[in-house]
Amino acid sequence: MSDIKTYIHENEPRFLSEWFSLLRIPSISAQTEHHDDMQRCARRWAELLHEAGAERVEVMPTEGNPVVYGERFVTSDAPTVLVYGHYDVMPAEPLAAWTSAPFEPVVRDGAVWGRGADDDKGQTMIQVKAFEYLVRHDLLRVNVKFIFEGEEEIGSPGLERFLSDHRDLLRADVVLVSDTSMLGPDLPSLTTGLRGLAYWEVEVTGPNRDLHSGHFGGAVANPINVLCKLLAGMTDSNGRITVPGFYDDVEELSPEERRMIASIPFDEAAYMRSIDVRQLEGEVGYSTLERNSCRPSFDICGIWGGYTGEGAKTVLPSKAYAKISCRLVPHQQHEKIGRLVARYLETSAPASVSVRVTPLHGGEGYVCPLDLPAYRAAAQGFGQAFGRAPLAVRRGGSIPIVNSFERVLGAKTVLMGFGLESDAIHSPNENFRLDIFRKGIEAVVGFYLAYGSAAR
Amino acid sequence: MSDIKTYIHENEPRFLSEWFSLLRIPSISAQTEHHDDMQRCARRWAELLHEAGAERVEVMPTEGNPVVYGERFVTSDAPTVLVYGHYDVMPAEPLAAWTSAPFEPVVRDGAVWGRGADDDKGQTMIQVKAFEYLVRHDLLRVNVKFIFEGEEEIGSPGLERFLSDHRDLLRADVVLVSDTSMLGPDLPSLTTGLRGLAYWEVEVTGPNRDLHSGHFGGAVANPINVLCKLLAGMTDSNGRITVPGFYDDVEELSPEERRMIASIPFDEAAYMRSIDVRQLEGEVGYSTLERNSCRPSFDICGIWGGYTGEGAKTVLPSKAYAKISCRLVPHQQHEKIGRLVARYLETSAPASVSVRVTPLHGGEGYVCPLDLPAYRAAAQGFGQAFGRAPLAVRRGGSIPIVNSFERVLGAKTVLMGFGLESDAIHSPNENFRLDIFRKGIEAVVGFYLAYGSAAR
Repeated sequence: MSDIKTYIHENEPRFLSEWFSLLRIPSISAQTEHHDDMQRCARRWAELLHEAGAERVEVMPTEGNPVVYGERFVTSDAPTVLVYGHYDVMPAEPLAAWTSAPFEPVVRDGAVWGRGADDDKGQTMIQVKAFEYLVRHDLLRVNVKFIFEGEEEIGSPGLERFLSDHRDLLRADVVLVSDTSMLGPDLPSLTTGLRGLAYWEVEVTGPNRDLHSGHFGGAVANPINVLCKLLAGMTDSNGRITVPGFYDDVEELSPEERRMIASIPFDEAAYMRSIDVRQLEGEVGYSTLERNSCRPSFDICGIWGGYTGEGAKTVLPSKAYAKISCRLVPHQQHEKIGRLVARYLETSAPASVSVRVTPLHGGEGYVCPLDLPAYRAAAQGFGQAFGRAPLAVRRGGSIPIVNSFERVLGAKTVLMGFGLESDAIHSPNENFRLDIFRKGIEAVVGFYLAYGSAAR
Repeated sequence: MSDIKTYIHENEPRFLSEWFSLLRIPSISAQTEHHDDMQRCARRWAELLHEAGAERVEVMPTEGNPVVYGERFVTSDAPTVLVYGHYDVMPAEPLAAWTSAPFEPVVRDGAVWGRGADDDKGQTMIQVKAFEYLVRHDLLRVNVKFIFEGEEEIGSPGLERFLSDHRDLLRADVVLVSDTSMLGPDLPSLTTGLRGLAYWEVEVTGPNRDLHSGHFGGAVANPINVLCKLLAGMTDSNGRITVPGFYDDVEELSPEERRMIASIPFDEAAYMRSIDVRQLEGEVGYSTLERNSCRPSFDICGIWGGYTGEGAKTVLPSKAYAKISCRLVPHQQHEKIGRLVARYLETSAPASVSVRVTPLHGGEGYVCPLDLPAYRAAAQGFGQAFGRAPLAVRRGGSIPIVNSFERVLGAKTVLMGFGLESDAIHSPNENFRLDIFRKGIEAVVGFYLAYGSAAR
């Protein structure tokens, strides 16, 4: 492996300059004003893929943001790996909380700082630079295809259609994704399960205009009051979701699984310190690691209504809004859950208001079998790079497209993610440690070498 | 009265041009960026007061926005009326809901449209133009003092201090205020009671930064979820406020009062149609008119937190905020209620978050005796102008300074208000009907003539 270490060391200034060129593009898929940035970012990835050794590189239009495609064909005897990444990023708000500007990347304290530094531009760079090394040293023994999409952070609304439309082009034996995180910098782990997600916007309408709270208050339903009651009622005092039917498809954890989760080194006090809370809170009867990976959750991601400016304005507003989401576990179907939640909110609301529930996105959960050859190759790569065999863990995040890969392409996905909790993805001050970036490249190189030998 | 009708008719173009010059100034006290507009508006009122016949007109500095003062002394034998108004207005948001721009007044459908058209620039114009008529026709038989403040919409934080500092200058037998509304255009009424108000901002802090709802959701308390539960818990299913001690000082309505309220002509179906709701909602056991005038209420005036932009962003936010208010009834003290509400919220919150409650403003309720000579003069003026004796009604709004006038100056207040519900004060498309404006001037002239004769 000393060759790859040397290669990284000698090429790191170029890696950083290429990575920064991506981070400087505010490719925020949730905000339509960034339409041109999406195109720019896709074209930049296409250049970088081509320079790394990919062929047939193409920016492929979709109904939404384009998909970047590239491939390198070795021989039809070899298995094919489809590498998936996404070039879109989360909005950067609240901007004031960033130490350095989100789209002006810098190296500080041994890490790269900026929106997308980890999720997913940094992690995707790991894939591309490992590939580049193998190509330039003639070590690639499997066929590789790349697709980088631009709508992951908004639920990949067009990707399933894209997969269907290009089923032959994308055919692969396994999908490789670097978009998850590890337990810690010295605790390498591979994600073997993901939660699903369902996300809705709720609009509550009361009177047809904002009213004077003195003249009407007490006699007319206030839509913010009603919204708070509706959302408060969605969980009970045991931290369980009250929506009828919500738990119908939730599989209880087996004793074995619970033992495995309990064996994961986890310092709850350090976890609390890192986010500065005095007490954790969740579903009664489950541990923190079970709650944030294997159990469903309900989070209000945003809420707004009435007067939110400076000072005091008395008003009984016409409307109130919330963005709400549930993390789902494997077997729960987001569309079914969506129907249950919408019915619950609509039927629980008093006749004094009207409620509209709009699904914004959703996806199912996923479980990866531990005896999959590609999984074992990934574990080997991790072991070589981090000096320690990775743990297999289920995580609480959601990558809805992992499910689509299975359904549409018939391929399992291996989640070789290198994120850390301290990377603050989706938050201000997102960052990615350079030591992890380097080890990540080594681990992916290790994966390809192991997977290539296994296939021979 | 034909003289006054003629005077109004002949001078109306000038009245409108003066009124519009005030409405064009966005004197929004809640927003510090309008600091200069407050000064401009005060100076403009000083010019108009002077032109109307006031003497010793002065823009008096305070720690906040200045107070406009003017007076006209007739004889020390005559009683003194202190006319109060306010030149500040509510924020105009949501701007998109206005048919014509809030600070570009227009006449349309027999009304003046713009922020402050009624509250309180329009109603204060009624006072000034009635005074002008009496001065120019040598009919003024009482001493008149004017104070127009610039902080009413943010709770008049500096006015009580101003009254104390200028007790001698402001000494008066009665205070006259046009800042309330009537039951309807053909149902003249005088407001004889007001509710008090207490208003707070609530801040709930969970983790020290926005978290990924996939990685943390289900295990870490979400401050928006907690805020919704706290606020939802402040009222019960009977529409009663649950804060311990909240109703301790609330006086039950007497059977006589309830009979009087029941006798007020009130079309509940029309009321519902006008605000487009299918059902009214409030404290069980009370009628709509009791609920919105004589009973306390709890309204969330604003709420915000997390991601509120376009599309779907999954986040477990660090903070959530709300602006909440209670309308209070006479005898409830806003400071005591503030302590109860703060204690309730702070002690009800789980240890997984911290809660901060900041009082933003407050004031006590008020009741006016019906045998007050100035009240009877006002009733007479209304009768002459509207052709029908006004009803005495208690209203749900709050004018905290009415209480200060009594406490600091020892003077009762007569509330000669000319607003209509359709004026949409505090809302988009605020307006003031010109026929009401004219009758208002007649009614105030009638008040001065009756009050002057009674005093002789």
